[in-house]
Amino acid sequence: MIYLDNSATTQTHPDVISVMTDVMQNLYGNPSSLHKEGVKAERLMEQARKVIAKKLNCHPAEIIFTSGGTEANNLAIKGVAEQLQHRGRHLITSKIEHPSVYDVMRQLEQRGWKVTYLDVDQWGHISVESVEKALTKETVLVSIMHVNNELGTIQPIAEIGQLLAKYPKVLFHVDAIQSFGKLQLAIDMAQVDLLSISAHKFHGPKGIGALYVKKNIQLAPLLVGGGQEQGLRSGTQNVPGIVGMAKATMLTDRHPDFLQRSYEWKKAFLDNVTRNLDHILINGDTTTEKAVPYIINLSFPGLKSEVLVHALENEGVMVSTKSACSSKLEVPSRVLKAIGRKDQEALSSIRISMGYQTKQEEMEQLAQVLLQVVPKLQQVMKVR
Amino acid sequence: MIYLDNSATTQTHPDVISVMTDVMQNLYGNPSSLHKEGVKAERLMEQARKVIAKKLNCHPAEIIFTSGGTEANNLAIKGVAEQLQHRGRHLITSKIEHPSVYDVMRQLEQRGWKVTYLDVDQWGHISVESVEKALTKETVLVSIMHVNNELGTIQPIAEIGQLLAKYPKVLFHVDAIQSFGKLQLAIDMAQVDLLSISAHKFHGPKGIGALYVKKNIQLAPLLVGGGQEQGLRSGTQNVPGIVGMAKATMLTDRHPDFLQRSYEWKKAFLDNVTRNLDHILINGDTTTEKAVPYIINLSFPGLKSEVLVHALENEGVMVSTKSACSSKLEVPSRVLKAIGRKDQEALSSIRISMGYQTKQEEMEQLAQVLLQVVPKLQQVMKVR
Repeated sequence: MIYLDNSATTQTHPDVISVMTDVMQNLYGNPSSLHKEGVKAERLMEQARKVIAKKLNCHPAEIIFTSGGTEANNLAIKGVAEQLQHRGRHLITSKIEHPSVYDVMRQLEQRGWKVTYLDVDQWGHISVESVEKALTKETVLVSIMHVNNELGTIQPIAEIGQLLAKYPKVLFHVDAIQSFGKLQLAIDMAQVDLLSISAHKFHGPKGIGALYVKKNIQLAPLLVGGGQEQGLRSGTQNVPGIVGMAKATMLTDRHPDFLQRSYEWKKAFLDNVTRNLDHILINGDTTTEKAVPYIINLSFPGLKSEVLVHALENEGVMVSTKSACSSKLEVPSRVLKAIGRKDQEALSSIRISMGYQTKQEEMEQLAQVLLQVVPKLQQVMKVR
Repeated sequence: MIYLDNSATTQTHPDVISVMTDVMQNLYGNPSSLHKEGVKAERLMEQARKVIAKKLNCHPAEIIFTSGGTEANNLAIKGVAEQLQHRGRHLITSKIEHPSVYDVMRQLEQRGWKVTYLDVDQWGHISVESVEKALTKETVLVSIMHVNNELGTIQPIAEIGQLLAKYPKVLFHVDAIQSFGKLQLAIDMAQVDLLSISAHKFHGPKGIGALYVKKNIQLAPLLVGGGQEQGLRSGTQNVPGIVGMAKATMLTDRHPDFLQRSYEWKKAFLDNVTRNLDHILINGDTTTEKAVPYIINLSFPGLKSEVLVHALENEGVMVSTKSACSSKLEVPSRVLKAIGRKDQEALSSIRISMGYQTKQEEMEQLAQVLLQVVPKLQQVMKVR
């Protein structure tokens, strides 16, 4: 099998499984317990927190463990919105955020908040100027993702951070779920206040994530109870998951050439398919500075995404239609619509996402399979 | 080591670890993905849902996976409160609920809801009459736990359910986190609308739980995004955790005599320590029908809980002071205060909680250790 759906989820690394098994067997105490089994679990958890903090170049106390990226995004946005509603009820985001940001914004709109959804250009970029224009006296939060999950577009996080530094009352949340471990982001340099990560996107376990919350920022918790995680996230901590996430974080350092090699493979792949296939559209940016190489989005107008995914699956290649969570809905991708694609174009897209385990041959084989499969489907569908 | 803190958390069963390892290695697809790796993960998850539904005697579609008991309790209460606020803003609970219920109620009070906190008797029982008296035209939800986590008291869930069946507009939530897998509760007979469970309390993994939501009940989601779990709980499902929880659910059937043997060991233990130690108080009920045998709560007025826990720890026995999540706060247990204990009595309590792995010799050894340790500490503290 050739697995090219790493933006949906990744294979849990054997070393991650190994440490999790060890923790579940031998360190099962509740980190809140007073006795030494609890203390051992707590120490282990705090070591894990240090690993993640070090990777983000922040203080361990600024890391709040959550059940994943969706919870981290919900906590960041709802936590700020509720905590700061006395100051203002205006939020800024973009039209191409992940549903766990976009749908939170829509939920808050229904509850009386005002939300500005920034436009993006034809490559999926938002402009720093548009953020500045959208700011009002009521604005309490700007939430912009680092790397778009469907397009691979990199947003100008550092520049937005510099802009927002001039507005100290406006907090800045970054969904870094598709970039953490692959793309550097100095949160201190970028002046980020809140940042979300999810372990299963970088070969860690499912069911665990984290939210970076800059020191002295107050949030209203979503889950209350035992008061764990400084009261910001109650519930017995998922110690094996936390340790697994820390292990996966350490493993990201093993692939210093990941971006470079992915750029090369992406270029070769796109050269090949665009040269040999008709009626193909590349969605997103293809320059190296403004898009990651490990997410490739193509449209084949006239074909259907689902049909293509299953045709590739029959050849042993796993790709996706759009973001996994909305892949079962037969509506055009909101993200592709935002970059100007027509419905028919958006409904014919596939997303190819590489991971650390991806090999050059696999990308070459994907190209071969596409060159076989697409013209046949195009003939059936009378595209050509 | 003698581990008698099973109400805080339990050792993950080797068979649970084994299935989780297998899933992480071989079935890592995102259950929302369209390709076969996604479909395989989804099927496995749906099998797990059936296992849990069967145990609760409900329909699989009535099971919503959450990140644990705290999230299940938060979702049930906040979900109903928000969804039904147009109908009324009054909630009923008891004074001895777990913080993940009690603190949610307090949070809702701050947001304008009215909450009635029912009194309990000296054994920790609430009365069905008190529930009926508290009902108003504004009441939308009653939330009562099945088994109290500090005392082991069993609440009259079936009777409350029968009462509330006469009030079809009032929903009934049961926190069954300390009872699931150990004590039967026919949710259909008990007319329960919502019920929370947590895997790590019955030898499943940490970081996973479930909320039973009776068919046709509408809830406002806490976490929005990808729309997983029928839109009630977004976020990529923790498939290994879900499968681990299902495995742990199946394993609960292996201990049909757990309650019976625990009753005998509890009785022998209490006979021994009350006969041989002075200044000892039993907190909670000691009758078989109204309290579970696997949670024992004792006070040693004049001593400090922490000192006792560490003295027992030195002898290799792990017990807790109160609920794990609040064990680091040096305030008297709210639950013990509610049954009429004075501060000094509440501050000298320990909780002993048995699990499937507990052996008779271990309970006997605990008694021996207490008989050695307590008189010495009492002499030092001049209690005797």
